Amino acid sequence: MEKLLYTGKAKQMWQTDDPNVLRVVYMDQATALNGKKKEHFAGKGQAANAISSLVFQYLIKNGIPTHFIEKLSATEDLVKKCQMFPLEFVTRNVVAGHFATRYGLKEGKALPEPVEETFYKSDELDDPFINESGTIALGIASHEQLATMWQLCRQVNALLKPLFEKAGMQLVDFKLEFGRLEDGKIVLADEFSPDNCRLWDLQTDQHLDKDVYRRKLANLTKTYDEVLARLEKVVKEDK
Amino acid sequence: MEKLLYTGKAKQMWQTDDPNVLRVVYMDQATALNGKKKEHFAGKGQAANAISSLVFQYLIKNGIPTHFIEKLSATEDLVKKCQMFPLEFVTRNVVAGHFATRYGLKEGKALPEPVEETFYKSDELDDPFINESGTIALGIASHEQLATMWQLCRQVNALLKPLFEKAGMQLVDFKLEFGRLEDGKIVLADEFSPDNCRLWDLQTDQHLDKDVYRRKLANLTKTYDEVLARLEKVVKEDK
Repeated sequence: MEKLLYTGKAKQMWQTDDPNVLRVVYMDQATALNGKKKEHFAGKGQAANAISSLVFQYLIKNGIPTHFIEKLSATEDLVKKCQMFPLEFVTRNVVAGHFATRYGLKEGKALPEPVEETFYKSDELDDPFINESGTIALGIASHEQLATMWQLCRQVNALLKPLFEKAGMQLVDFKLEFGRLEDGKIVLADEFSPDNCRLWDLQTDQHLDKDVYRRKLANLTKTYDEVLARLEKVVKEDK
Repeated sequence: MEKLLYTGKAKQMWQTDDPNVLRVVYMDQATALNGKKKEHFAGKGQAANAISSLVFQYLIKNGIPTHFIEKLSATEDLVKKCQMFPLEFVTRNVVAGHFATRYGLKEGKALPEPVEETFYKSDELDDPFINESGTIALGIASHEQLATMWQLCRQVNALLKPLFEKAGMQLVDFKLEFGRLEDGKIVLADEFSPDNCRLWDLQTDQHLDKDVYRRKLANLTKTYDEVLARLEKVVKEDK
């Protein structure tokens, strides 16, 4: 019997017959303010899943270890079960969002070197900012594991920045999560969609990500469909 | 003519006839909640100055470069003028204060390795937590300068932890600030008093620092006088 393991902000995780494999279901839902605001968007789940599957397949092709096995249906994937680190790894190429408000900066300034921030995933604590020594103190990960995960973040940035640029979009920032497989190997997990990155049109600076929902700028599903169409084109050309 | 350069939460900085020398005046004042709460305490300024002068002299004797020149009177010092980095360097040996509330931890747990946190000094932004890549992005300090300042923090911790222990106190955490002299040399600046560290009695865990004011536990000046008396005793023995 399949069992629901976890309902997140935009996905559900289900057990499968294989104890090492989970089924991910993308929901037609968007949240903001760490889940305090929530709304239904028909077609959003399938667009996010299509984008994320495309990106994960591209990363795997380029040597990044991930949890992704295969796309099962429009809204479902199979992924390897892993023990997640309760950390969000945020890489910022351009000043935006929290980074701008926290330090009183204007959005849009390109950063001379990427800003790298971790947040401790905890709903009760509102996902607080954490640094390396805090992560060690809380027993969340070792120095070596953190170094491995940041190395993967840098590789992902080096692969995806030019990919999105080819698709006419600036990769402003993105959030990654990692887990450990049974043998301890660290793999990229979660998803990569406009739910957890910022994409700005290279020509117009138009927002093509969840900020469209956070800031009520445009139709969310249409925006995600536009990102998908642009990505599909460049990934096909890349083959 | 002497000119008031700056009034902080518990000190004033005055110009002197020498353009490279400033006069610090310790005030009989304590603040909490980043200055939102403020109160007068007779004798607090002279106790804080006596403790800080004693600690700076001890650090200088042990090779730490500082801005401190000499104690001028009960409430005044002469210090070298320097360009301050707008950063607070916090070193934590034991879980307490913001670190405990931010991550949902109990106060009092000894940390396996010290937690090291920087905060961007900005009253408008409420001194936000910042990490190394953010500090670089904001142009506050270089990687090399940060490494130098953290190295000094570790040396200070290695010197003061045993000193306070000898005086019957646990050095729970402390905040340091640094500046650059005209020739670019980085020196420890600001002060070291129970205003910017936590000290717990080794036997009773009694608070012997500004938490006495923050949490209304005891008389602030009496507490600082007690810390001073204990420190004077061990520093004399050390000679």
